[in-house]
Amino acid sequence: MSLSTGALDDLADFSIEVPSWAYGNSGTRFKVFTTPGVPRDPYEKLADAAQVHRFTGLAPRVSLHLPWDEVADPAKLGAYAQDLGLRIGAVNSNLFQDDDYRLGSLAHPDARVRDKAVAHHLHCLDVMRATGSTDLKIWLPDGTNYPGQDSLRARQDRLADSLRRVYAAMDDTQRLLLEYKFFEPSFYSMDVPDWGTALLHCLDLGERAQVVLDTGHHAPGTNIEFIVMQLLRRGRLGAFDLNSRFYADDDLIVGAADPFQLFRILVEIVAVRAHRPDSGVNFMLDQCHNIEEKIPGQIRSVLNVEQALAKALLVDADALAEARQRGDVLGANAVLMDAYDTDVRATLADRREARGLPRDPIAAFAASGYAAEVAAGRTGGTQAGWGA
Amino acid sequence: MSLSTGALDDLADFSIEVPSWAYGNSGTRFKVFTTPGVPRDPYEKLADAAQVHRFTGLAPRVSLHLPWDEVADPAKLGAYAQDLGLRIGAVNSNLFQDDDYRLGSLAHPDARVRDKAVAHHLHCLDVMRATGSTDLKIWLPDGTNYPGQDSLRARQDRLADSLRRVYAAMDDTQRLLLEYKFFEPSFYSMDVPDWGTALLHCLDLGERAQVVLDTGHHAPGTNIEFIVMQLLRRGRLGAFDLNSRFYADDDLIVGAADPFQLFRILVEIVAVRAHRPDSGVNFMLDQCHNIEEKIPGQIRSVLNVEQALAKALLVDADALAEARQRGDVLGANAVLMDAYDTDVRATLADRREARGLPRDPIAAFAASGYAAEVAAGRTGGTQAGWGA
Amino acid sequence: MSLSTGALDDLADFSIEVPSWAYGNSGTRFKVFTTPGVPRDPYEKLADAAQVHRFTGLAPRVSLHLPWDEVADPAKLGAYAQDLGLRIGAVNSNLFQDDDYRLGSLAHPDARVRDKAVAHHLHCLDVMRATGSTDLKIWLPDGTNYPGQDSLRARQDRLADSLRRVYAAMDDTQRLLLEYKFFEPSFYSMDVPDWGTALLHCLDLGERAQVVLDTGHHAPGTNIEFIVMQLLRRGRLGAFDLNSRFYADDDLIVGAADPFQLFRILVEIVAVRAHRPDSGVNFMLDQCHNIEEKIPGQIRSVLNVEQALAKALLVDADALAEARQRGDVLGANAVLMDAYDTDVRATLADRREARGLPRDPIAAFAASGYAAEVAAGRTGGTQAGWGA
Amino acid sequence: MSLSTGALDDLADFSIEVPSWAYGNSGTRFKVFTTPGVPRDPYEKLADAAQVHRFTGLAPRVSLHLPWDEVADPAKLGAYAQDLGLRIGAVNSNLFQDDDYRLGSLAHPDARVRDKAVAHHLHCLDVMRATGSTDLKIWLPDGTNYPGQDSLRARQDRLADSLRRVYAAMDDTQRLLLEYKFFEPSFYSMDVPDWGTALLHCLDLGERAQVVLDTGHHAPGTNIEFIVMQLLRRGRLGAFDLNSRFYADDDLIVGAADPFQLFRILVEIVAVRAHRPDSGVNFMLDQCHNIEEKIPGQIRSVLNVEQALAKALLVDADALAEARQRGDVLGANAVLMDAYDTDVRATLADRREARGLPRDPIAAFAASGYAAEVAAGRTGGTQAGWGA
Repeated sequence: MSLSTGALDDLADFSIEVPSWAYGNSGTRFKVFTTPGVPRDPYEKLADAAQVHRFTGLAPRVSLHLPWDEVADPAKLGAYAQDLGLRIGAVNSNLFQDDDYRLGSLAHPDARVRDKAVAHHLHCLDVMRATGSTDLKIWLPDGTNYPGQDSLRARQDRLADSLRRVYAAMDDTQRLLLEYKFFEPSFYSMDVPDWGTALLHCLDLGERAQVVLDTGHHAPGTNIEFIVMQLLRRGRLGAFDLNSRFYADDDLIVGAADPFQLFRILVEIVAVRAHRPDSGVNFMLDQCHNIEEKIPGQIRSVLNVEQALAKALLVDADALAEARQRGDVLGANAVLMDAYDTDVRATLADRREARGLPRDPIAAFAASGYAAEVAAGRTGGTQAGWGA
Repeated sequence: MSLSTGALDDLADFSIEVPSWAYGNSGTRFKVFTTPGVPRDPYEKLADAAQVHRFTGLAPRVSLHLPWDEVADPAKLGAYAQDLGLRIGAVNSNLFQDDDYRLGSLAHPDARVRDKAVAHHLHCLDVMRATGSTDLKIWLPDGTNYPGQDSLRARQDRLADSLRRVYAAMDDTQRLLLEYKFFEPSFYSMDVPDWGTALLHCLDLGERAQVVLDTGHHAPGTNIEFIVMQLLRRGRLGAFDLNSRFYADDDLIVGAADPFQLFRILVEIVAVRAHRPDSGVNFMLDQCHNIEEKIPGQIRSVLNVEQALAKALLVDADALAEARQRGDVLGANAVLMDAYDTDVRATLADRREARGLPRDPIAAFAASGYAAEVAAGRTGGTQAGWGA
Repeated sequence: MSLSTGALDDLADFSIEVPSWAYGNSGTRFKVFTTPGVPRDPYEKLADAAQVHRFTGLAPRVSLHLPWDEVADPAKLGAYAQDLGLRIGAVNSNLFQDDDYRLGSLAHPDARVRDKAVAHHLHCLDVMRATGSTDLKIWLPDGTNYPGQDSLRARQDRLADSLRRVYAAMDDTQRLLLEYKFFEPSFYSMDVPDWGTALLHCLDLGERAQVVLDTGHHAPGTNIEFIVMQLLRRGRLGAFDLNSRFYADDDLIVGAADPFQLFRILVEIVAVRAHRPDSGVNFMLDQCHNIEEKIPGQIRSVLNVEQALAKALLVDADALAEARQRGDVLGANAVLMDAYDTDVRATLADRREARGLPRDPIAAFAASGYAAEVAAGRTGGTQAGWGA
Repeated sequence: MSLSTGALDDLADFSIEVPSWAYGNSGTRFKVFTTPGVPRDPYEKLADAAQVHRFTGLAPRVSLHLPWDEVADPAKLGAYAQDLGLRIGAVNSNLFQDDDYRLGSLAHPDARVRDKAVAHHLHCLDVMRATGSTDLKIWLPDGTNYPGQDSLRARQDRLADSLRRVYAAMDDTQRLLLEYKFFEPSFYSMDVPDWGTALLHCLDLGERAQVVLDTGHHAPGTNIEFIVMQLLRRGRLGAFDLNSRFYADDDLIVGAADPFQLFRILVEIVAVRAHRPDSGVNFMLDQCHNIEEKIPGQIRSVLNVEQALAKALLVDADALAEARQRGDVLGANAVLMDAYDTDVRATLADRREARGLPRDPIAAFAASGYAAEVAAGRTGGTQAGWGA
């Protein structure tokens, strides 16, 4: 099997957004390991992100996270991104690191804390205006640890009210992307634990409110591609946070734990052509490179997504429809597996070469000397991480 | 702590619906064990169900399942129920046992099969009219076993269309109750796998379409009381299928696996007074007594639900609100635990005695000789089970 | 990457055992669907199994299950297998379908029932002697459904005693293969729920007692290849029951749900050359083709295992060792992924062709007309299934 | 039902060990919240722990964690504990916070790192000798995040060798307690992921090596009391790390998530009288009070364990044996539930009062003014946490 011209065009138009925080330090509650050369500020994070795009041509946008990426002049940061051939993608708010957020933020029992959390989003909207970002991404860590701790229902009401205030402050060109998560950092209840809750809030807010699906934020055994389909069917799949997991929200390299699942997700995407830029679906990474090298980890990630998309584009839609029509369970499954089992790496390497990119981006990055350069040059200061 | 007069009134008005199939044989895919005295027809099932109500005063309604409970004259069956001091509750359709349903029913690729499944529901509506039932319960076993087997999205579209046709045929006094299930009997995808999907279909259908929450139909770790709250908040919790599970859809006696979870669910119910008859929430059992005695199993089940409700009614709402107000995590949790840790059994036995019911319904049933009587009397014929 | 001569030799020597029951009817607790042409006795099952070997060259052995495969003259059945180019593999005992086994078999509280279960195994040993089988496979469905129902510890003691009696009756050339399972058909406790329990019993019994790993018998998130490694390290991995699952013990086609996991399992196998016939590891299938065609389902299964093995044999062990040595997390992972991402299907088709087998076994079987022939010829009688 | 004299004696002899780190700061990877009054050194942690014992009489021992509880003079710390009416319990090693441990500790590929990890344990043994501790507790966070990253088998071999070296350095009066964990901080594989692996290592080491069961370290759906039974049956249950969880290793207050499970665990304990001090089972807490008050959180925890033990002691063993004997599933379960449903709080309060302890330890602690006192007094310095 080989990719059609249309499929190759689709690949050419496809892009992935990388997160600024992937280049900083991250870890588990047990330990954050550090590495020489880790960026110390948002400018250095962008510089690292630019390497991913330079060697792959796949990653022209970078998500910011506030306050981790707070700078004196956001417009300057946006301009710097452009100098690097990038642009600013989604702006992520932070609702978990302020001491006031111990018992919640947008759903907190105390109106003072909710006001503070809303105000933080208004600031994010300003940073978006300054940097050219159009997506406000809200992941709500709110929840409770003990049964009875707070009213599950009152928390929904408060959250709905807070979200309305944020939504009302948005420009017509801005989107609100609401992300759900099954558990962590709260253990008994999360205030937006599932796609159903996220979607209900978005439906209440309006058309520019859409759901973010993080592939690591589900209960074990959940059929994620079903949710992808369902949100697309309702026109409310705003974005992905791609990563992979074996157990919880492991935030490993996308495609590293279950490449077949990643393929199935992209099959649902391709089925309605949601991989096309005009679909409004933002394909973002959200990962933690706790023990592996960060820039190569990101390069590997975007290549994995591209590979899965290429395989999804290989699926013979006519043969599939025909097998389904005649109730041929094994036949329909085989059409899918034929695409999945195909090795598309050489085709993708050819494509890269034709566009002036290296056949092997990981090797090319290693050969570039960039890692050694930043390890030597970035001395002094404090390495960026989740805390800063 | 002791139950207030209001709480005692609430308990007096509370009732649980038992399923006709709990009195017939059931089992796993490995084996269906049989017992002497198992009913051979719907009339005998009702007779058994009447024993549960006779000794507990808690179970005045019985759900039917078609075609398992198909009779020549449904009106006569309804009248027989009345003679026993019961009435017919929900009518359950069966979408899994016809050979035509191998690849689905309401979502089947073939219109002929979908028509057949829709027609089955129109028949159910007729049986409801004849028996005085107002609830049509649809649990959809449809799904796929292999990736690619069918289009997840096309199945949603077909399902939506089939449901619309059923809904259109309903009287104004009839409700459609749609039940979701995480997995089984399909293993790769279920067409209504979660509350979000069930709710979306109900919202599309109209106000008389509501969601059924079966406590055994969720992924491991799911916070079920959150879903209860969310569906109540949207006014779309139509009914429970109560049972308990350790791993999958084990259909064990409600309260047997995690009595604290059952209590937490009832706390959410009581918080908005949804235990009151006018809430429209139908508290049904859906269980399989594979290895234990069936009538005592049902008696134990309704007692467990009553006990959990009594404890939920014990929660000191003012103390809870106060603790939450001051952000006292342990204090709020302790208010809940105080109610849960209280032994309400003597109070409930007193209440039964005062109403002319036995203090110990299990012992009273055992002493009644009913089990021996039906074991001796029900000879010949074929015992009822899931297959008949 | 391409397969070395040694790897090709390994593939030539590798074989998979198919289960007789895969050709009979199976289903869920909700429904067993039937198909024209399903075998009516063990002879017809062997005939179907022979088709799998005929088109793939991979499946020269068939497991039996007693009493499902009880025949008047087991030696004749063994000879018939030989006529078909097959031989009898493991003999599986059945501990779940006798009415006496309601509360257990080898671990039952009543000595009479335990004696009966032990006697059934002595009979299995006789059938093994008659048919040339050397493996007695015991999957213990025993357990409890309700806390308190029985003493977990007393059940272990009784089980140990029963197993000792079976082991004592074995010839020196016979092996006891003990299979563990996380849950089902018992829901609260299983008496052999995990590899640790199975191994302890085997260690107590003696060297000819070994563990069976069924890939569908674990809790969600379990790292199965770790267990493979651990049992191999102790010299006690006797056999696999291969299949795949999304949620519970779904018994789907091996490799259908998570082909990367199957590959990782085979990587652990290849690492210690346990894929070689002299390793004593028996690679068996244990699957249910509930809705798909059975013989093609089996063909697909053995091809999937062969494909995973071929990929595992492609892993560059030197490069892997080197990357691990220098602590190169991404590099070591990439060595594995390079093998996994390689499309080995053409190589395997070439290999088949060179051995006089069809390049596409599924298509060749379809073209053979066998399915239509048995559908037409096998009329009358009762189709075989789990119950017979 | 009421507690027998024997049961009351058992309760009088029962004690729980509290962890020093429960009094310091802890959190998730997202945030560690702080509170005024948190201890700044091991002496202050002991002072806090003494409060738990003072108000409950249940917690006379405190576990240490090195290097978090490193002091200049461990003997002095032991003496200080004695002054407070406490003694030092287990000493926990730390294998996750050194920068060298990025890829493991006792199982690390590099012998230098393994040597370092072994040496750390030799130091722990010295601290044990100085403080009067006899239990060395090893929780191994080692594992890998990506398939292929390291050889699963080589890691077992290295681990076995490292453990042997530690064990060899132990005095005859010292025990090695090895703890297993399903996942976290490693996501693909843990080197001691389950009780089977821990037990095999202990069996290899010798009789003074025993397994630690942390109630939060299992896959979803695992029957933990079965493992308790199995380890007791082998004489290798050394200790518990008690806590509770809804999803992963949440480290919440024991009994807060599933009090019925805690009861079932204690039923297995009581069945073989392993609650008696001479059983050698050390009942320890391992919890994180991320958002709730720490000392009251610990008080609540020890009270929850005592309550579960009291209920387990209430189980009518004769009635249970009898019901089991006659195969009465519901009857046997009812015997257990009768004990569980009994409210033992008043009895336990009476018992406390009779021993000169407060009836309500939480209220008494709140009234004592201790929290305000330390919040005012512990100014300056750095609060203790997982990092120090």
